[in-house]
Parts: sequence; structure tokens; C-alpha cells
Amino acid sequence: MHGGAFREPFAVTRSIGVIGVGVMGAAHARLLLHNTPGGRLAGVYDADAQRAASFGVKTFQDPLSLIRSDDIDGIVIASPDSTHADYVLAAIAEGKPVLCEKPIAATAAEALRIIDAEIACGRRLVQVGFMRRFDAGYLDLRRARIDGSLGKTQVLHNVHRNKAAPPWFHGAMVITNAFVHEIDISQWLLNSAVCSAQIFTVGSDGPLMITMQTEHDEVISTEVNMNCGYGYHVHAQLVGSAGTIEMAPPARTLLNQNGSQSFGFPADWIPRFIAAYRDQMHAWVMSHTTGAPVGASAWDGYTTTLIADELVEALAGFKRTTLTLPQRPDFYRD
Amino acid sequence: MHGGAFREPFAVTRSIGVIGVGVMGAAHARLLLHNTPGGRLAGVYDADAQRAASFGVKTFQDPLSLIRSDDIDGIVIASPDSTHADYVLAAIAEGKPVLCEKPIAATAAEALRIIDAEIACGRRLVQVGFMRRFDAGYLDLRRARIDGSLGKTQVLHNVHRNKAAPPWFHGAMVITNAFVHEIDISQWLLNSAVCSAQIFTVGSDGPLMITMQTEHDEVISTEVNMNCGYGYHVHAQLVGSAGTIEMAPPARTLLNQNGSQSFGFPADWIPRFIAAYRDQMHAWVMSHTTGAPVGASAWDGYTTTLIADELVEALAGFKRTTLTLPQRPDFYRD
Amino acid sequence: MHGGAFREPFAVTRSIGVIGVGVMGAAHARLLLHNTPGGRLAGVYDADAQRAASFGVKTFQDPLSLIRSDDIDGIVIASPDSTHADYVLAAIAEGKPVLCEKPIAATAAEALRIIDAEIACGRRLVQVGFMRRFDAGYLDLRRARIDGSLGKTQVLHNVHRNKAAPPWFHGAMVITNAFVHEIDISQWLLNSAVCSAQIFTVGSDGPLMITMQTEHDEVISTEVNMNCGYGYHVHAQLVGSAGTIEMAPPARTLLNQNGSQSFGFPADWIPRFIAAYRDQMHAWVMSHTTGAPVGASAWDGYTTTLIADELVEALAGFKRTTLTLPQRPDFYRD
Amino acid sequence: MHGGAFREPFAVTRSIGVIGVGVMGAAHARLLLHNTPGGRLAGVYDADAQRAASFGVKTFQDPLSLIRSDDIDGIVIASPDSTHADYVLAAIAEGKPVLCEKPIAATAAEALRIIDAEIACGRRLVQVGFMRRFDAGYLDLRRARIDGSLGKTQVLHNVHRNKAAPPWFHGAMVITNAFVHEIDISQWLLNSAVCSAQIFTVGSDGPLMITMQTEHDEVISTEVNMNCGYGYHVHAQLVGSAGTIEMAPPARTLLNQNGSQSFGFPADWIPRFIAAYRDQMHAWVMSHTTGAPVGASAWDGYTTTLIADELVEALAGFKRTTLTLPQRPDFYRD
Repeated sequence: MHGGAFREPFAVTRSIGVIGVGVMGAAHARLLLHNTPGGRLAGVYDADAQRAASFGVKTFQDPLSLIRSDDIDGIVIASPDSTHADYVLAAIAEGKPVLCEKPIAATAAEALRIIDAEIACGRRLVQVGFMRRFDAGYLDLRRARIDGSLGKTQVLHNVHRNKAAPPWFHGAMVITNAFVHEIDISQWLLNSAVCSAQIFTVGSDGPLMITMQTEHDEVISTEVNMNCGYGYHVHAQLVGSAGTIEMAPPARTLLNQNGSQSFGFPADWIPRFIAAYRDQMHAWVMSHTTGAPVGASAWDGYTTTLIADELVEALAGFKRTTLTLPQRPDFYRD
Repeated sequence: MHGGAFREPFAVTRSIGVIGVGVMGAAHARLLLHNTPGGRLAGVYDADAQRAASFGVKTFQDPLSLIRSDDIDGIVIASPDSTHADYVLAAIAEGKPVLCEKPIAATAAEALRIIDAEIACGRRLVQVGFMRRFDAGYLDLRRARIDGSLGKTQVLHNVHRNKAAPPWFHGAMVITNAFVHEIDISQWLLNSAVCSAQIFTVGSDGPLMITMQTEHDEVISTEVNMNCGYGYHVHAQLVGSAGTIEMAPPARTLLNQNGSQSFGFPADWIPRFIAAYRDQMHAWVMSHTTGAPVGASAWDGYTTTLIADELVEALAGFKRTTLTLPQRPDFYRD
Repeated sequence: MHGGAFREPFAVTRSIGVIGVGVMGAAHARLLLHNTPGGRLAGVYDADAQRAASFGVKTFQDPLSLIRSDDIDGIVIASPDSTHADYVLAAIAEGKPVLCEKPIAATAAEALRIIDAEIACGRRLVQVGFMRRFDAGYLDLRRARIDGSLGKTQVLHNVHRNKAAPPWFHGAMVITNAFVHEIDISQWLLNSAVCSAQIFTVGSDGPLMITMQTEHDEVISTEVNMNCGYGYHVHAQLVGSAGTIEMAPPARTLLNQNGSQSFGFPADWIPRFIAAYRDQMHAWVMSHTTGAPVGASAWDGYTTTLIADELVEALAGFKRTTLTLPQRPDFYRD
Repeated sequence: MHGGAFREPFAVTRSIGVIGVGVMGAAHARLLLHNTPGGRLAGVYDADAQRAASFGVKTFQDPLSLIRSDDIDGIVIASPDSTHADYVLAAIAEGKPVLCEKPIAATAAEALRIIDAEIACGRRLVQVGFMRRFDAGYLDLRRARIDGSLGKTQVLHNVHRNKAAPPWFHGAMVITNAFVHEIDISQWLLNSAVCSAQIFTVGSDGPLMITMQTEHDEVISTEVNMNCGYGYHVHAQLVGSAGTIEMAPPARTLLNQNGSQSFGFPADWIPRFIAAYRDQMHAWVMSHTTGAPVGASAWDGYTTTLIADELVEALAGFKRTTLTLPQRPDFYRD
């Protein structure tokens, strides 16, 4: 990395370019415009040039010129999934840090190419946007696991509910787009690799119940529900031999009105995780100076893709899937 | 039944005898002494004569003389499981209503003999003590299913936690003694028969995660945890296509003290379900006059035993158990 | 009382007559019909003969013949306030226990006549229907005060909200009909007599904030709100020098639907306090046999009326009212 | 202000100096070091030179040289209360924005001098550190008042509890140091000026109950409790004619352990309001460029001091204090 000698991290403000400013990329760009200490939005590329221009900063004609520009210190990738791998590889080739929305690549084979390139480069440059790792609730659960106060971890209950699947949502995306978050966050929470999984379905567009087992004899039980009808809702409870810890109800204020007490759910994941997105961006920008990687690595992105691929295959039947994951290289041990 | 002509149910106070006044039987006897409108404790049998005498009512030398006594209108059975079937059969022979603690019989074969005897007798005389059916929380969930406000029912999440298994607790009892409650209550809540089940274990005395599927394409996901460490805790959430309903936190008052806000869990199931036990006893006693059966029938007790037996067999492995349950006779349709 | 020698309280079922079966009296009559162990509804008087007959038990032509009937062991008074004192005095003259809805009398002078009569009779026969003393939440708060775990009691916060005042509700009734409950329950909770009070008003039909101080240097702060708009809601929090205890949110089940999580408030006080009414009736009937008075005494009813009268006078201005209450006679010490 | 032409606010990073880095000033300095987009810590003054140096940025020998330095764009004042007015006046003289911890001045007379100086200068340069205005919960309450969904506002209930008063805390500080927050936030929430107040005390170091009335016929009822024993706890509930809104329990995660469910309270106000402090600093720094004032003005600081002074006088007795506040100049209307 460029830095190193600064004792005050803020002496350098990183110039960040964003590739793709649809829903998610626009959220990242706004964070860089208004809410990222130590980072600034310095460039945007989008297939829609008008959309790119709307942020009021320099725009680029193509993604590779953004990646290679001397005005850009780091790259955020939020373009269509199929393009992720190429842009990540280009960023690695430039030796620039990259924050890539999940999935890291459309296929496991492409993800593996990224792994190879990053190891060859000798530096950890890739972070995958599993923003839940920066959510205060998940961080509380993880601390409780680490400090041992709940005893031996035994069960993790996850609930992942969307109000209604968008029209473009198709079968396998419940795994590759939604459940992939639980694959990452569960392994991170437990510091444990999953080794088997089984899916139970309800109707054609009803919830999935997915039961996974880990190398350390834990069970991860997840409801993935793309059409819960009432709002966006994510919940997790960690069960240990001496107690449990779970997210509190997601309420900031309570309303007594019209015969009931209530609080509202957000319509989608962005308001639910906006603080996590903000902290993820901040931590990522800070890591450019410190050089210490934070968040999900390329390896995490790769194995998550591997597991998701196997689950997509298993989705049809009730058979239990045994997962044999590759050994994590030392390069990816924190 | 004797009654029928009374327009005021309380014109008759039923005289009830209790067989077995250990922990559960003593709770029933106290309810009949102090808290059952329309019923009174009229006799007790217990192998420990001193314990039997402590309730200050008539005691009997043996269970059959209690069952056959002219002073006894109805019988509560809370003696050891192996004795249940014989006493239930004796009560049927006398034409007297009987409330039998679960299980209705130690084996499915014995349970079937009870079914045969009751059908032969031509009247529904047997109620099994699945008291959760009288819990206000479960009743709310069931009403929500019936009124259809949550749409198509899809998933039922159950949590069943005991602080610590007693010393005499052995492997299969987690099914036959604990999970048997979820088998009954889930089918009653959903009005749906289970047709497959699969068990996931955590260590030797850790929680079980049990996934069942029903004839109406619902999934029942249950954590049965005999050693949760923190207290007795039962929770259920019903997920429909248009929303969910779940039990509120079991708190009556909240304490702010010593750095935290808290409420306590009960040590065991009796305080948690004392109102359900009271309402069960009251409803059972009232049913002597109305003749309309309430609560779990002998058939419910029989099929619950069948399912539990299959699950005990399945406990060792990860294989999915397909359950083929006998057809419910018309005699047992409400 | 008749009893005394029975070791089993249920050996005797008390025959109770109810005078006045409007909203509140009908609720009492139903409790006696269906839900009062040891008691039964044996007679009803109401100015509306048809309404009286609807309970299916013996009806009386006038209240005094009910009170004096040999078929009636105890009397519940739920007739218009102006009649309370006469009926209570008649019951005392018969030596029969009486449960009188609040207020015990329309004026303090009448209440004093009851006190005199009861003391002359030499036995505690009168209970005033301050049912909140039987509410599980208030009982928890009181136990916390008694066991000393919260240290020195300092502040009691009360919230008393009705959805909308009925049309017949007029100014002073916010004190004499509504706040009178807080006068009784607060002194009972704290075991402390109030010695001053001050009222703050909001508009003509807005809430009152009433601050009272007690003989033991405590402050009781109450919002009395007859038109809160959203439902019936009663809450209390007791603040001590070492912590606080308060009622939990009044939710049995939680609904996730239409964008929010919610639970409902009851429309009025009867569902909120139905368990308290039931336990009050049960305890009152039991007290006929034990002879030990329970609940609010005639003295409590008298002093509550005294305080309410002074507050009605104070309602116009902001002046602080100093209350000088008569000394509690030994006859009324528990 | 210097800026104006920039369309991207982040093009300029403001250089901020902090005067006084004790508990509160150190928190501000850390926010500027790590967590303030658009701002950076550029200088520190503290009477303790070593403490000043610990932040790794330029230190100043005296406060006035910091205020006047060309390296400093804006000033945060967190030095002892008695020094506030002089430093604020010096900052105004330099035409630099200043964020001053409350109180704006030790006396109302000094505060008035600041008002005069700021009006003479012709620009709003002073913000008082009433950080609660940036708390997400209070913002929800205020929005509910503004959008009118709760009807006419009627009552605001405040609870302000500290675990234990520090040793240096003396009588009047419960008003000038603690309750002063409720004076500001209540008027801001209601957009209503208080016009009378009355204090009720409990013992010598027990809670105060303070009842205030506003120009718009609202009642503000506040418990100020410096020794609640259990933790730092701030709560507010706004009551309107059509419903209420209140802060949800301050829980992020819930722990089931050792017989109870619990969440922890923070030990003091900094963790409770850290997000509000962060957002306050960010908004203040952003306002340097936009020129639009945010937060509490010098006028708000002045009138809060006026009210606090009157309440300190009233603290001894039970008399009601009528407050006649000066008219807000147009200069201070938003």
C-alpha cells in the first residue's frame, strides 16, 4: 500500500471509484460522498452515462479506464454479477484494493482465478461485500461466541425474510442471492466450516428451511423466505450450552395508535443494514492505510460460491448434501 | 353422562379422584382442591400412603377401588407411565371420564387397546393431558390459523428448552417425554398430520433440531433442548404467506437493576403452564356435563405415541423418516 | 360466618347474590356462574327484570329481599353509585359479607356511616371492588417493595388511559371514577398514605397529570387520560433507590403483518383486568370461610372517597392540596 | 463562510481545533480523528499538555492562539464551564464556527453578551452541544409531532437517570448539568416554550419530579434521577390526542442466561449518545460549507440557562415558578 508512515489515518483521504451505480452501487456512492471518513467518491462508471453523471464527480467511459486511472486509489464493484471477476482481476493487476459486491464471481472457477491472482500478487487486495459482518447485532453475537460466556456453541437460528421477491427473481437465486448471506455470516459467527446441508421446501415460492451442520458439531437452521408479506426482517439467535444471545426486536420507537402498539419493518435490506454498509466502507477505506484486511476475503467469497452451487443442485430433492470444502490456504488466515 | 338436563353447569360439582400424586399429580390435586369451578378433589391414591393422605381427602388402598368407587365421578391419572393403559381401560369399563397424563400408554399396542375399548363403549371418555392446547398463547396462534389472516400456513417454529435434564433422563426420553408435546401441539395448531421427520443432533446431550413435514406441505422446525442452562422456555411462531404470529416474551414485569433490564424464566414447566393446567382441568370437568369432548383424545394420544416411537428409532442416524399414520376413525372427528 | 371447622375450604360452596347486572355486575355474575371455585350465583336483582332473568338463576323483586334471603350467603353490589351505601348497610345488618363496587358510597359522610356500622358489628364484612389489588403485575410490584430488593421506594409512575370517555362522562368523574383507582392502588403498593396532591390539566378533555406526595416522602406521578385514542392501557413503574420494576408490555402474542410488528390493546378495562376480577371474586368467596379479610376495606373505600372529594375541588386551579386524612382505626389494620 | 462554490461538500475537509480534552472533549477529538466525514482534528489545547499531545496532532500553548490560528477552521469548546463564554466570544471575533459544550456560558448575563456579539457579526456561528437533537429516537418523536399523526401534542414524559452522581456533584447541578438537557430537548421536540415549572423532591439525593407547562398548553413531566442505581437510562414518550410515540427499550441484543432474559444499560451517557455525538459533529462540520445552522443556537443556550437559573432558585420549595422568557429575535428563527 502507499501509506504506512502516517500515524494519523486521516492524513490521507482515499479516492474511490464505483463501477455500477444501480440500487446497491448508488448506495455505496452516496456513502462515499457523504459518510465515509478518510474516503471520497472520485469516479463513477455506469453503462447508463446519465446515471453515472448524477453524482457530480468524474465519470469514466469504461470500467477498465476507471480501474487504471491514477485518480483512483480503490475500486467498489457493484455491476452485474457476470462482470465481477473480470473487474476484480483488473484491480488486482493494478495492485489496487477492491470492494466487490457478492458474489465475487459468477462461477466457482472464476472465483478460483481470483484466488490464484491474489496469492500471486502477494497482497490481500480483495474484500467481498458481506456487509452483515459489520452489523452491530451480529458483532454482539460473535463477541459472545468468542468470549465463551454462552459455553459451547450448539445451534444458530437464522431468519431471512423479504417482503416479496422481485419479478426477476428465479428459483436458484433464493440460494445464490439471499441464502448466500447466511452461508457467510454463519461460518464467520461460529468460526466453523459447514460440512453438510439439507433443504426443506414449502410449495413453489414458499420459504425454505435449510439445516446445515458444521465441522464443530453445530447445527445452523435457517428460514429463507422471499415472500413473507410483511417487510424485510433478518434475525439470528446463537444457542450455547450456557445460554443464548439474539438480536433484539428491530425497533427504535414504539407507536401506540389505532388499537395497537407497533413498530415498522423496513421495506428492504438497505435501511436495515445501512449502518453496516457505512461501517464496512469506512473499515475498508481505513484498511488501505493499515494494510490489515477486514471483512470477507476472496477465499470466503469463493467457498461461499462453492457451497451455494452445491445447494442449488440439492434444491430439487430432500437428499442431504455432504460438502467437502477445500483447505483454507495460510494466505487467507487472519 | 349423568347430566344433560341442567341448564346451569354449576348445579353439579363433580367428584374427582387422582391416581398418583407425585409432582404432576400433586399439581392436579391442588387445582381440584382450590381452583376448579365445578369440580372437587374427592379421593386420592398413591403408592406412598402418607403422601396420599396429605391432601386431607379420602384415600384409597388401590387404584382400581378408586376408579370403581361410587364417590368418584371422574379420574385423573398421573401414576407411572407403565400403569396408564390399565387404569384408563378400567375407567372406560366403569363408564367414567378420565384425564390421563401423557403418554396415554407405554406402547402403541396398548394405546390401540384403549381406542378399541372406547369405540366399543360408544362414548368419548378419555382425554390426554396435552395441556398446551389450553395455553392462551397457543390458542392465539390457532385462532390466527383458523381465521386465515396470515394466509396459507407454511412454517411452524418451535423452541422447547429445559434448564437441565434430570438425572433419570435418558436418550429416548427427549422424544417420548419432551418432543411429544410438539408432536401433539403442532398437529393441533396446523390441523395437519405430519408425514415425515428428520432429526439433527448436537453432541450427546445437546439440543435436537427436528424438521417435520405435514400432509398440507408445511414444515415444522423444532429445537428440543434439555440442557439450555438458563431456565424453562417454550416458544412458537407460526409463519403464513401473509405474516407471522408468535408468543410474546414471557414477562409480566421488568426489572431495571444491576446494570440491566431483565425478567425471569421459570425453573420448570409447571409455573409456565399453570394457567393451562387450570383451564384444562376446568374444561375437562365441564365436559362431564356437556358431554362434548375437549382437549386431546385417545386417538391423538395413540398417534403421538406412534410418531414418537418412529422418531426414537430414527434418533441414531440422519435418515429421513417417512411416517404413514393410520386413518383417523370418524369416532374421533370433532 | 357459618364455617370455621372445615379443613377443606371447598366443602362449602357459597351462594352469592348480585345486585345490579349492568356491564360490571354482569361480569361478576358470569364469574360466579362459570369461574369461581367455592362460589355460585344464587340470585340476581336488577331494575330491569328481563336482564335479571337472563342469568337463569333465582331473581328477586327488590334488593333488600335478596340481601335478607336465607338462600344468599354473600352479596355483590354493582348497582348505581347512589345506592351503594344503603345496600352495604343492609348487608352489615344481616351479618353477611359484601363485595361492593367502588365507590363504597356516593359521599364521604355515607361512607363514614358504613365504617361506624361495621365497627359496631365487630366483624369485617365489607370489601370494596378495587380489583387492581388482585392484578398479577401490581402484585409483583408490591412484592418488590416488600422484599426491599429495590431499596427505598421513591417514585411511582402511573399511566391510566382510556380510549375515549363515554358520552355520560363529566368533568369530576375523571377523579371519582378513574383516578380513584390510582389513589387506592398507589397507597396499597407503597403502604403509604398520600398527604398532598396537585393537578396539572391539558385543555378541557385532555389528560391530567397529578402529582401526589406521601407520608414517607415518595412522589406518585399519574397521567389520567380519558381520551388517549388508541385503547385501554394501564401501566405502573415503581422506582426505588436500587432499581425499578414495571409492568411488561401487555402482549400475549406478537403479529408481524402489513409492514409492522404489533400487539393489540383491549378496548376497555374488563379484558385488561378479567383475571384480577376472577381472583378478587375467588379470594372474597374464600374469605367467607377463613374469616380473614382480603382486598380493600371499607376504610380504604372511605379515605379514597375523601381524597377524591378534595381533588375534585382542586381540579379548577393549580394550587397544591394538602390532605389531612383521619387516623386508621385498629379495626382496619391487617 | 469560505466555501460556497463547491458542489461536492467533501471537496473541503475542515480543520477543527478542540479546547479541553477531558472526558467530553476527548470524545469529540476521537470523533474528529476517526469518524467525521469532512472534518479532521487539526489542533488541541488542554491545560494538561501531555493529555493534549496524546492525540498526535498539533498542540497549542493557549486557547486563544488555537482560536486565532490560520490552521484552524472551526473550534470545539469542551473546557470548564466558566471559560465557555470567553472562548465563544473569541471565536465569533475571528468569524469562525464554534461548537460549545453546554452550558453556553456560566451565567445568563454572559450568554447575552454572546447573543449580542453574534447578532452584531451578522452570521450564525455558534452551536451549543445539545447532542440529543441528533439522537435517532428523539428525531422520530419530533417527526411524529411535525407530521401530525398523533394529533394535538399533550404530554411529554421524560426519564433521565444516572447510575450514581459523581462525588463532585452538588445540589443545583441536577438542574444545570442534567435537567438542562430536558429543558432544551423538550422545547425543541414540542416547538413550544415552557412558561411555568414546579419541582417535587424525594429526600436529599433522591429523584426530582419536575412538571413544566408550555405556551401551547402541554405538560412536560420529567423524572431526573442522579442515583437510580442501575445504569444510565434516558427515555421519552410523547402523548398526543390520537396516540403516543416513545423510545423502544435500548437493547441491541438479548441474552438468555442464569434464569433470566436481559440486556445491559450503559454506565454513562457517552455510549448511549455516541451516535448522536457523531452525527452532531458531522452536521456541524457540514454546516460550515452550507452556511445553514443546525442544532441548538446561542439563543437556545441562553434561554435554557435562564430557565435553569430560575429552577435552581425554585428547588427549595414547592412553589410553582412562572417563567417569562424574552422574545426570540428574528435572527434566531430557523
